[in-house]
Amino acid sequence: MLQMMLALLVSFLIVLLMGPKFIPYMHKLHFGQTIYELGPQHKAKQGTPVMGGLMIAAAVVVCCIAFHPISWGGAWEFMIPLVVFSLLSMAVGFADDYIKAVKKRHEGLTPKQKIIGQVGSALAFSVYCYFNPKVGSSIYIPFTSIEWNLGIFYIPLMTLVIIFMVNSSNLQDGLDGLLSTVTVVSMPGWAAMALIMGLLYPALKQDYMNIAVFALAMTGGAMGFLRFNRYPAKIFMGDTGSMFIGGGVVACSMLLRQPMMMILLSFCPIMSSVSVILQRMYFKATHGKRIFKMSPIHHHFELCGYSETQIVAMYGTITGLCTIIAVLSVFGGLMG
Amino acid sequence: MLQMMLALLVSFLIVLLMGPKFIPYMHKLHFGQTIYELGPQHKAKQGTPVMGGLMIAAAVVVCCIAFHPISWGGAWEFMIPLVVFSLLSMAVGFADDYIKAVKKRHEGLTPKQKIIGQVGSALAFSVYCYFNPKVGSSIYIPFTSIEWNLGIFYIPLMTLVIIFMVNSSNLQDGLDGLLSTVTVVSMPGWAAMALIMGLLYPALKQDYMNIAVFALAMTGGAMGFLRFNRYPAKIFMGDTGSMFIGGGVVACSMLLRQPMMMILLSFCPIMSSVSVILQRMYFKATHGKRIFKMSPIHHHFELCGYSETQIVAMYGTITGLCTIIAVLSVFGGLMG
Repeated sequence: MLQMMLALLVSFLIVLLMGPKFIPYMHKLHFGQTIYELGPQHKAKQGTPVMGGLMIAAAVVVCCIAFHPISWGGAWEFMIPLVVFSLLSMAVGFADDYIKAVKKRHEGLTPKQKIIGQVGSALAFSVYCYFNPKVGSSIYIPFTSIEWNLGIFYIPLMTLVIIFMVNSSNLQDGLDGLLSTVTVVSMPGWAAMALIMGLLYPALKQDYMNIAVFALAMTGGAMGFLRFNRYPAKIFMGDTGSMFIGGGVVACSMLLRQPMMMILLSFCPIMSSVSVILQRMYFKATHGKRIFKMSPIHHHFELCGYSETQIVAMYGTITGLCTIIAVLSVFGGLMG
Repeated sequence: MLQMMLALLVSFLIVLLMGPKFIPYMHKLHFGQTIYELGPQHKAKQGTPVMGGLMIAAAVVVCCIAFHPISWGGAWEFMIPLVVFSLLSMAVGFADDYIKAVKKRHEGLTPKQKIIGQVGSALAFSVYCYFNPKVGSSIYIPFTSIEWNLGIFYIPLMTLVIIFMVNSSNLQDGLDGLLSTVTVVSMPGWAAMALIMGLLYPALKQDYMNIAVFALAMTGGAMGFLRFNRYPAKIFMGDTGSMFIGGGVVACSMLLRQPMMMILLSFCPIMSSVSVILQRMYFKATHGKRIFKMSPIHHHFELCGYSETQIVAMYGTITGLCTIIAVLSVFGGLMG
């Protein structure tokens, strides 16, 4: 347990202490955000540095290495894929941010480059899980004791899920402190589920404890980051951060064989994606009408007159409710 | 588990739906806050209704009755003292609020009346716990497996602890959304500890599950209340609410025999009290010098230039870190 406490606290402190040096440095490098001209009035955000996600990633990686439970028999098995996949996922976002910031080319990576990067890493991780005897092709169905064996379809299906979730996480990151708050609230839920499932499946206890260390390091990092990312934001996490977090979440869920739990814990990011998809479909079907004033849906709420902080609080509350329900449902398995 | 999920959700919805009717009603009754003249500039808050705590209390009581686990053998034993003591504790705050609001007499209850009410209820609850074979005079020492038997000293010591904690909770309630946020973050921690301890002590499982239902009803109520209590607050919980919450927290901790865990989960309220005590002692010792610009310490931070929302976020973060650490330490008992 000590390792988990330390992962949480040290990760928090790393980001908290890095911030005051990192933010001016990013300013100096002119790694500022170029704001979409078609969004709600966010002119004030022009020039706010991006790539704050690098701080979270640094803190998580350091803590996962430092507080890896050697005492639990040195089982690195789940820690390495978690960290490696999150970093791979981040790499795509980082390349995008870097091109935008340095070359001032708003589009970032070309769609082709992005697809290759995302599909490649998603496919690799799905294949890894499929062939790992500790994961395999069965997933749990929430609120039941049913395991659903997807067979070979696990690989294409999970590849799609990963891509969808990483991009949802990216879409969610549209208001000051929004994705950070959702992460701070939901990540302890993944840690709790990992610990509970460690009791349910003693053979996998050490591996699941690795997931808890990772999830708590992520929690601490996002908590520290909120210090600077909260409204009015001094730094954004950028695609770098949102894809790192998205990758981390999806990896935790798959290693726990609970990808369907993302419907609860990542309810808000998923709604962001769904709102974008609905908007486009409706727009095409009606030749120009819109359901939402703007998508993703958090911009719709903004245009309805809610302030950024109100929307963040709403998303935090919804995520909190969903997270507690998810953890209780997994805990129910212990009660028999 | 279903009862706990429902307690959380229904309590949240009750407050959320009550708010839009309750707040104008309180306005109509002129139950507005009279703001201290010596505090930081909070003139804008003049006239904001108090007694919002009644909504939380109503939601908690309804949910504790409705989602009481009859299916677990109908063990009402821990639910009744939890609800009754919280309401007793609230009664003192309510009388205070009522006198202030209706009679426009700023002092509220006389010190003597307050002391009689608080000491009486605290003593009664301590005696109840002492003689209840499921509680008794032993308390756990956090981070160890040691039980500390206080013997007959349990009664006076716990009476003091209760009075201290209820008043700390009251002092904490000084900024928009501050105590609500601390409650939303720490209460799921009490629920988690109750569930974990139910696994450690199977004979007490049903009783501890009652505590979890209560704690989650409180979480949901405070979440719903935050909708109206967040900066800029449309309603305050008043002494009514802060003493209800304070009583609920201290009751959960004592029934779980974990009162020392309040040092972590109620770290922020305790610091509020400690800052007031330090300020007074220093003021007396130095004949007029001050440590803090103002106490409780959240007003000090305000006068240092932090905004209300920044301070609330800081307190929420600290409470989050402490809560996760507390839950992990209790969970450690399951790992052996």
